[in-house]
Amino acid sequence: MTAPDPALVDLLGLVAYGELLAFDRLAADARLAPDLRRRAALSEMAAAEMANYRRVADRVVALGALPEEAMGPYVGALQAFHDSTEPKDWLEAVTKAYVGDAITDDFLGEIAGALDEPDRRLVLDVLHESRYAEFAAAEIRAAIAADARVAGRLSMWARRLVGEALSQAGRVAAADRGALTALIGRREGVDVPALFQRLTAVHTERMTAVGLNN
Amino acid sequence: MTAPDPALVDLLGLVAYGELLAFDRLAADARLAPDLRRRAALSEMAAAEMANYRRVADRVVALGALPEEAMGPYVGALQAFHDSTEPKDWLEAVTKAYVGDAITDDFLGEIAGALDEPDRRLVLDVLHESRYAEFAAAEIRAAIAADARVAGRLSMWARRLVGEALSQAGRVAAADRGALTALIGRREGVDVPALFQRLTAVHTERMTAVGLNN
Repeated sequence: MTAPDPALVDLLGLVAYGELLAFDRLAADARLAPDLRRRAALSEMAAAEMANYRRVADRVVALGALPEEAMGPYVGALQAFHDSTEPKDWLEAVTKAYVGDAITDDFLGEIAGALDEPDRRLVLDVLHESRYAEFAAAEIRAAIAADARVAGRLSMWARRLVGEALSQAGRVAAADRGALTALIGRREGVDVPALFQRLTAVHTERMTAVGLNN
Repeated sequence: MTAPDPALVDLLGLVAYGELLAFDRLAADARLAPDLRRRAALSEMAAAEMANYRRVADRVVALGALPEEAMGPYVGALQAFHDSTEPKDWLEAVTKAYVGDAITDDFLGEIAGALDEPDRRLVLDVLHESRYAEFAAAEIRAAIAADARVAGRLSMWARRLVGEALSQAGRVAAADRGALTALIGRREGVDVPALFQRLTAVHTERMTAVGLNN
């Protein structure tokens, strides 16, 4: 067996740890749910993240690496992001999931474009779990419909999340063993400013779609 | 469609809420895990509880009732148990799962004996998720092997859990709308003292198996 591509294992480690953290965060958010129906819905979405985690972890093992070692470098950086953006209530929790997870998914999706199959498809598959985004968007819209002042408070919270996410990106890059950067660079004709423009445009669209402003 | 058996819906509500709580508790315990490997293992076990939850909730819906209404009466009583037995560390968490979940499962398993099929099989199936019990037992044994004094501390914690579980049973009975009591009474030749003797005997065996004492 040839040695696994370290850039690939690192990226899969980041994606796997992202799933594990999403599970943890959704499970904690479920406690903030205003009723049992929404609590159960969120708990099921959390469980779905673990099915994604298992797929990525199995691939890491198949590549001859250990999932816990592949995830290790990212623990501190991502934990710091979550510690600095602990939601105070249900609406902050769903906004964080709607805004934060989507921007992370978009970013990882761009990087995954540089992978060969089957890993490209695997990463895009596990990122493309949109059930929670739709659920979160419906919750935000309903809250704004019930009280228009909510839009201002949640817009401000969303801007703070993006700011923290950007500094998280910096921390992840610092934690990374050079592999992610290599992957981005490997992508043919990669244009980093254009990449950021795409990410920002999609983010703005997403905010507008639920009545929040940048 | 005939009206659903209220005793059956109530019992399924209790079992469903038990799964939702087990999910929540395992997800919280995962944060106490000493390493990523064990954290991921616990998170996957939490996710498995939600698959069980889904099976029971689907059955409640098929019976013409709403899962959130069936679960409602038990929320306060079970929450009080968990609030009064919050684990302080990893070993308390695994001991709580090993001792507390098993005794609850045994009790619900005895009640399920009074159900007709397919519900009898459904309840026994979702209770019979022993992966975590084996994982927890291995963790407790390893900790005692490393430091014999741990046995005393965890034995004391286990006794407290059983005491709280008994008073939880009283609270659940008070929350119950008479259906569980009816189900227990419906079981042919039910002998409540003998039932408690069986539960106690199995509990003692379980404690001894991992080096704890009653």
